[in-house]
Amino acid sequence: MSKKHQLSVDPARIGAVLDGRWAEQRYIGRSFIDSEHAVLSETGDLEQLREETLAGVKALIDTGISGLPLPESEGGQNNHAGYVAAFEELVTAEPSIQIKAGVQFGLFAGAIQHLGNAEQHDKWLKPAVRGELLGAFAMTEIGHGSDVASIGTTATYDPSDETFVINTPFRAATKEYLGNAAVHGEAAVVFAQLITNGVNHGVHCFFVPIRDGAAGEPLPGVTPEDDGRKGGLLGIDNGRLSFDNVRVPRTNLLNRYGDVAADGTYSSDIESPGRRFFTMLGTLVQGRVSLDGSGVTAAKLALDIAMRYGLQRRQFTGGDDAVEEVLMDYQQHQRRLMPLVARVFANAVAHDQLLESFQLVFGGEDDSDEARQRLETQAAGFKAITTWDALCTIQECREACGGAGYMWENRLVGLYGDLDVYVTFEGDNTVLLQLVAKRLLSDYAAELKDIDLGGVARYIGTQAAEHSLYRSGLANVGRTIGDIFTPALNNKRVRSGHVQQAMLHNRVEVMVADLAGTLRPAASMPPAKAAEVFNSVQHQLIEAARAYIEALKWEALNDAMHEVQKRSGHDEEAKLLRRIRDLYGLSLIEDNIGWHIMYGRLSMSRARQIGPTIDSLCTKLAANAGDICESFGYGPKHRRATIAEGIEAKRQQEAMDYYRNARAQRDFPVDERHLYKQRKAKEKKAKRG
Amino acid sequence: MSKKHQLSVDPARIGAVLDGRWAEQRYIGRSFIDSEHAVLSETGDLEQLREETLAGVKALIDTGISGLPLPESEGGQNNHAGYVAAFEELVTAEPSIQIKAGVQFGLFAGAIQHLGNAEQHDKWLKPAVRGELLGAFAMTEIGHGSDVASIGTTATYDPSDETFVINTPFRAATKEYLGNAAVHGEAAVVFAQLITNGVNHGVHCFFVPIRDGAAGEPLPGVTPEDDGRKGGLLGIDNGRLSFDNVRVPRTNLLNRYGDVAADGTYSSDIESPGRRFFTMLGTLVQGRVSLDGSGVTAAKLALDIAMRYGLQRRQFTGGDDAVEEVLMDYQQHQRRLMPLVARVFANAVAHDQLLESFQLVFGGEDDSDEARQRLETQAAGFKAITTWDALCTIQECREACGGAGYMWENRLVGLYGDLDVYVTFEGDNTVLLQLVAKRLLSDYAAELKDIDLGGVARYIGTQAAEHSLYRSGLANVGRTIGDIFTPALNNKRVRSGHVQQAMLHNRVEVMVADLAGTLRPAASMPPAKAAEVFNSVQHQLIEAARAYIEALKWEALNDAMHEVQKRSGHDEEAKLLRRIRDLYGLSLIEDNIGWHIMYGRLSMSRARQIGPTIDSLCTKLAANAGDICESFGYGPKHRRATIAEGIEAKRQQEAMDYYRNARAQRDFPVDERHLYKQRKAKEKKAKRG
Repeated sequence: MSKKHQLSVDPARIGAVLDGRWAEQRYIGRSFIDSEHAVLSETGDLEQLREETLAGVKALIDTGISGLPLPESEGGQNNHAGYVAAFEELVTAEPSIQIKAGVQFGLFAGAIQHLGNAEQHDKWLKPAVRGELLGAFAMTEIGHGSDVASIGTTATYDPSDETFVINTPFRAATKEYLGNAAVHGEAAVVFAQLITNGVNHGVHCFFVPIRDGAAGEPLPGVTPEDDGRKGGLLGIDNGRLSFDNVRVPRTNLLNRYGDVAADGTYSSDIESPGRRFFTMLGTLVQGRVSLDGSGVTAAKLALDIAMRYGLQRRQFTGGDDAVEEVLMDYQQHQRRLMPLVARVFANAVAHDQLLESFQLVFGGEDDSDEARQRLETQAAGFKAITTWDALCTIQECREACGGAGYMWENRLVGLYGDLDVYVTFEGDNTVLLQLVAKRLLSDYAAELKDIDLGGVARYIGTQAAEHSLYRSGLANVGRTIGDIFTPALNNKRVRSGHVQQAMLHNRVEVMVADLAGTLRPAASMPPAKAAEVFNSVQHQLIEAARAYIEALKWEALNDAMHEVQKRSGHDEEAKLLRRIRDLYGLSLIEDNIGWHIMYGRLSMSRARQIGPTIDSLCTKLAANAGDICESFGYGPKHRRATIAEGIEAKRQQEAMDYYRNARAQRDFPVDERHLYKQRKAKEKKAKRG
Repeated sequence: MSKKHQLSVDPARIGAVLDGRWAEQRYIGRSFIDSEHAVLSETGDLEQLREETLAGVKALIDTGISGLPLPESEGGQNNHAGYVAAFEELVTAEPSIQIKAGVQFGLFAGAIQHLGNAEQHDKWLKPAVRGELLGAFAMTEIGHGSDVASIGTTATYDPSDETFVINTPFRAATKEYLGNAAVHGEAAVVFAQLITNGVNHGVHCFFVPIRDGAAGEPLPGVTPEDDGRKGGLLGIDNGRLSFDNVRVPRTNLLNRYGDVAADGTYSSDIESPGRRFFTMLGTLVQGRVSLDGSGVTAAKLALDIAMRYGLQRRQFTGGDDAVEEVLMDYQQHQRRLMPLVARVFANAVAHDQLLESFQLVFGGEDDSDEARQRLETQAAGFKAITTWDALCTIQECREACGGAGYMWENRLVGLYGDLDVYVTFEGDNTVLLQLVAKRLLSDYAAELKDIDLGGVARYIGTQAAEHSLYRSGLANVGRTIGDIFTPALNNKRVRSGHVQQAMLHNRVEVMVADLAGTLRPAASMPPAKAAEVFNSVQHQLIEAARAYIEALKWEALNDAMHEVQKRSGHDEEAKLLRRIRDLYGLSLIEDNIGWHIMYGRLSMSRARQIGPTIDSLCTKLAANAGDICESFGYGPKHRRATIAEGIEAKRQQEAMDYYRNARAQRDFPVDERHLYKQRKAKEKKAKRG
């Protein structure tokens, strides 16, 4: 590697930026790798993998992680962000263990914690957190994933014996993709339409025993099915559940937001059924928060492997005939990997802000509607971009390692298969970005707040309407920087932070204003026509949301850089972070350069500088690739990739030594190409003479 | 689905365009699915999958496919393109069977056929083609993949017993990733540096027995290792081979391009060692040709599954409260899938042109240097873009199917894992595009032809230098359309074929001219400095190659459209192809819209039309999504995806029937949301009153 651009940084200081405020819990999660149950066998046998994964989840309990989010009164620390931070690091062990633990502690126990009462906590939450009561989270149905409000499962109250009767009225209402459902789950929290006294009160959650003990026989009326093999997460026993007149006591309704009295009278503290529904769902935002951070972990792991290999692997000679170049010195290799490094930094520091929002709300410090809504929007948008980034990053890393990247022993292909589903579960990314977009719109224009456009629009619309206090905060940023677009802008350096900020935010503002202009007339159209108008801008909506989320992530990176700049003696680290921020910002601008030119935000001459500036930033950043790997904080046990641990460098040294020794021997064969060149030169000379 | 834009097309006619000139052999390949050995078990057990795959390869022999490329004198049909077309369709059965067959017939037998003599054909080719002699293709080493000239394995001639001594001098020279090496291979064609009389004559190919019978014990001096689990292609027994003083008779050298006499004298018809090397490698172009077509098959399969599901699956209500919308009606769903449909059409028809080039050269009709070079460039560039497209397409399709897409039973995740390696084997895509770029350069400027820039440049440079007759044909197209860039251009419709053509070609020309300008001075620089200059434009080189290849594919699509337009009574089919061509062309322009504006090829007002025009084309094309699925020519046995065969529509009908019947009952529960709305309206009225 060229040392020309290398900064003298302390990887630990960079690592501290990445690890954020809950670093301590993060390290606990990272150290789980030392457990003998942390890693699954290299086998394709589902039964074996599932048992190993269960053992991993049980081993995890010993770390104390699962108790962190419980209230102090119930033996926990009320530390929600810390729990999530630790949880996210489990990707370094096994995503299967992580997600099975997520199902058990985050979803199953989480639903009991957030939707249940104290008595229910005593009865089910405690054994769930101790891993003594394994459960499934039965929300999604075959027929309805993103549109939870439309699920078909019913829970009809029968006052005669004070029970709810749970039913799967048709095949599409079968609960689907549930971890713990195929084998291990003893119970499930089942989301169903609560019907009492002839009224459907919408989706509520019920505690329903499904098996006679752990991994036992299904209880009467409960039919589990096994989802079998998947694209990854092979250690999780995903399956289906259907219910045929399964009766549970009235007190099995998790009744925090809605209850049914013995006589069948329904009551709720939240009058609006829509608001009640979204409040219940909102308590489950933790899943999205933790997947955002998990995407960061996965991308770091992949880059760690590919960059370490790229710093050793040599291929083709360059200026020097005898020594081949390391891959990381090739411009294209830098161009492939460095923008992904910048993205993972942006995602990591933005995630730390998300964790803070999360702790404020769930720790109880600021449980206001506004705080909850900001949290939900951040979680939805961040999760979408980070998990997509993670997949792209893993794939690019796998390709950057060539054939070696395709070998299971080098980790990347397994990681890809596991992470693949993160982009569609806990909220399909495409739907999540529409949710963000709708909130941007309702923040932008009051009359769009209550617009009922049908379709996905209605789903999102309802949510946004319930969240009238929501503020994206974007408009304010926009106003303060509005005046930066003077004619002089184009003469500023493209690496100026203010220019990047202005361009990224301005793009969001213009996109949102354009969309609002198109959608405003739809508010007074008949539903079918309005839905058509909405559908005609769906793509733009999603792009606007992406632009907004990426602008927020840029802000987080900019904040993190300024934070480091303030510390004395951290100049080189601050410079590295500036390179990362600039690469992130300019890459975003390059991705949409046509837009910036078309809207007059970038002169053509300045636009032409973007590409070469990115090239140069990639080269500079690559000079610290080794430090960046170190800053990720992972060891060989986390990476578990043969090619990342020096074997390649050793082999190449051996080959070089061989040739050096061989050349020194008298009988080392002459290369025919040299003889050919000599002969041709002689012939040429003879001809001339 | 909206019928507004639907064209009345005959899917068979569209299918004929896709299937091309070797449709007959393509159907033979497609019908292999009827063999009882065509599909592997849904298991993760490597041993079982490998045996099933071997059985599949043997079953394949009964179809007669493997004999197609043999000369008529050896019982074949000299039908190289037909063989490849049939082979490509095997992706619909199992990629594992396809690639193991490719190793056996294309690589192992192919090397014997193209590099060996008649006697060697009798001895090894015939049993190889009959599947009685299984073999590995031992070219790649741990230390060298793309840079084949630098492999370390040696074959040193010993006149005392007239043998070659094969050696692996150091660990990095171990042959790696070889199908058939871990278990089934009885022999290997081994690429090694041929050394005789103290001269290294470069890489040659040797027939080397490695096992005592099929799946038998390794022969003395041969050490096989097993690569174990991979990201996909689990049915193939990839492995490593190393050699310790393994002696093979002199006559085991496949001696078509270079031979060694009993006394050790080397001889070759090709004087230049560089040219000889590339001629030998050139005979193996078939692998790249067939992967190009395999990428088409895989992408078609994935789109077939996702579109069939998208036409059934309903989610969220739109204009009508009672009936949910099908996914394919959502703009974003169209925007996700339709550009990929356009790409697979472009890749398919371009591939047919590649097959024609291939048949011309290998059938012997035009075996000129120029034809070979054109073929090699096409194969390299097409393969790179098509295989990347296939991966992106499969992933997008998997996400478009949500959680169902992640289930093994819906095929997409398995297909992704299998196809993943296609982007780095038979030539790493990144290296292949550099090869294309260097040829563009040497065609553009004579002085760049012999430039020695070191590194990858040198590798590519040598190849290009050897190919002085190479003509991309691009400059000619460029000249004829040069005058289209009048000020009036921007007033033409963006869907004009001439405008698309001019923009796509002009971009390539400008990029190549820019690069030539940067690289020209490097020709007179010292090697290290020159290598640095070359490296500084590596990314641009790759982008130029991509632009060139995509322009060629656009031409192929344009040709195919005109072909259909000429046929009477095919108007609707021609219109569909025009939509596809325009969507492909405009998507390419949108991908690089900043470039086109910056270089003054597109006015800003016209540029703003591109996005909405693409939106509209996607919607129009989606109206024929069902016909497009039909045109792919696959049945349920090829797709093997539960969600693609009507089960989803059936479930949704069942759910709709349930609700219709339930609503007709007196005791159907009232929705609380309606009661809430009524109450609110009443309260409002009361307040007013």
